[in-house]
Amino acid sequence: MLLQRIDHVGYAVGDLEEAVRHHQRLYGAEVAHREHLARDGVDEALLAVGGSFIQLLAPTRDDSPVARFLARNGPGLHHVGYGVANVQATLSRLQELDVRLVDEHPRPGSRGCTVAFLHPSSSMGVLVELVEDPARGGIERSTGGVPGF
Amino acid sequence: MLLQRIDHVGYAVGDLEEAVRHHQRLYGAEVAHREHLARDGVDEALLAVGGSFIQLLAPTRDDSPVARFLARNGPGLHHVGYGVANVQATLSRLQELDVRLVDEHPRPGSRGCTVAFLHPSSSMGVLVELVEDPARGGIERSTGGVPGF
Repeated sequence: MLLQRIDHVGYAVGDLEEAVRHHQRLYGAEVAHREHLARDGVDEALLAVGGSFIQLLAPTRDDSPVARFLARNGPGLHHVGYGVANVQATLSRLQELDVRLVDEHPRPGSRGCTVAFLHPSSSMGVLVELVEDPARGGIERSTGGVPGF
Repeated sequence: MLLQRIDHVGYAVGDLEEAVRHHQRLYGAEVAHREHLARDGVDEALLAVGGSFIQLLAPTRDDSPVARFLARNGPGLHHVGYGVANVQATLSRLQELDVRLVDEHPRPGSRGCTVAFLHPSSSMGVLVELVEDPARGGIERSTGGVPGF
């Protein structure tokens, strides 16, 4: 199985701080990472969930893909990011299978990751992101999870 | 953090076998579990992704929530399931916080899990499922992932 883990689920939100406070209030979530992704026109806040993340994404310009998603659908589930060992090798395989891609070449993502998006029309209507995280070295680390309350 | 892991991402699909073949062809995915959930009016196939699952859901009757989702949106991301130690305790906490719930009481899910859904209007537009998996005993197991190709 080329998809090694669910790296993150991406939520499109209108107000990043409100979304962070919502998850703090309901679940006691903590922000593990923040980043402004100029290329994508979004600010992100990552909430750690076991070995994965909830990625909260708020647009920073009206023509960003997340802004268009919000205008069309309102806030909600935007995409799923799956960890792979090698984005380039995965893209090459998918191109051989005539899968439609948003990114034909790997590009920088947040946290120093390398990423590429598949087009939903080739992916059961789901916007799928491939994520290669150099901190993981292509091998899963334990989720090292925390017992609940 | 009360959400211990991303248990699964739920995809609404029109044709379960086509969706399984799609994931086999693109990623070499394998079906870890199949179940007919009469109460929800769906057939599911679970694909293991590290310690999580892709849950493929196809409706078995026209008035099921997944059938209505498909009629409104077409195939795509339907919900996210988060592992919690105790669904009842989590629901009690959320009710104290005036969170709107779909299920006010825990109910049986697939794989012998106990589950409850939150209403998207109280959850940033995301349909959230809480999942208590007795096989996990409230503590994370290692994802025990597999190196990629």
